[in-house]
Amino acid sequence: MIKYTDQQIETLIEKLDFSKLEGGLIPIIAQDNISGEVLMLAFANKEAVKKSLQTGYAHYYSRSRNTLWKKGETSGHIQIIEKVLIDCDMDCLLFKIKQEGAACHEGYYSCFYREFKEGELVEISTQLFDPKKVYG
Amino acid sequence: MIKYTDQQIETLIEKLDFSKLEGGLIPIIAQDNISGEVLMLAFANKEAVKKSLQTGYAHYYSRSRNTLWKKGETSGHIQIIEKVLIDCDMDCLLFKIKQEGAACHEGYYSCFYREFKEGELVEISTQLFDPKKVYG
Repeated sequence: MIKYTDQQIETLIEKLDFSKLEGGLIPIIAQDNISGEVLMLAFANKEAVKKSLQTGYAHYYSRSRNTLWKKGETSGHIQIIEKVLIDCDMDCLLFKIKQEGAACHEGYYSCFYREFKEGELVEISTQLFDPKKVYG
Repeated sequence: MIKYTDQQIETLIEKLDFSKLEGGLIPIIAQDNISGEVLMLAFANKEAVKKSLQTGYAHYYSRSRNTLWKKGETSGHIQIIEKVLIDCDMDCLLFKIKQEGAACHEGYYSCFYREFKEGELVEISTQLFDPKKVYG
């Protein structure tokens, strides 16, 4: 799990460009640090980035609920951050994580559980959990 | 390279939710289909998604230039789409691609070429090309 001092976190926050999306958000990609599977994309504001780096657990900003959100807070399906990568334009982060349980609120390990193949949405992974047990 | 009929593409476009971001955009993650390395994140409107699926080459929408943009059009650093994955909320796509040259306009294979480690931005990959030769 990563850990940074408050000063280190402030340095990164100052470099990041939160001006491009409404609400001061940046997209964050969560990727399995071992398998390389992309698990989800979510958005974060400054506070969510700060909380993620302070605690080592992925926090995002919920656009539907308008609130900071610790991934897995109620479900236990948390994301432990192992590496933080920054893109060239400083407007997107990539969290390399260890996923507990499932990333997707529908119970799949990854949110990207469907492929668009020959015009159909084909499931390419298995539903691991009852959706009711993953939400939040 | 993937190919879809116009009708198949329309079916997908209708399912996607372009309403969540200003300008009718969705984020698209481009990932190396072989290594699993995440190469970049960009945004697309309906037209860019359509063009991508019609041609098999990644197209995005440039927020700074306000225009549809074929990745690599001027530089030759194109992205051949091999798989299209859709997330649970239908508001994000994952292109599994074959990257010609470099994805990053700064000449790195991936835009995520820096890790935030012990408070410093550390380069974790090699600059393959002169930035001037990759832009566009």
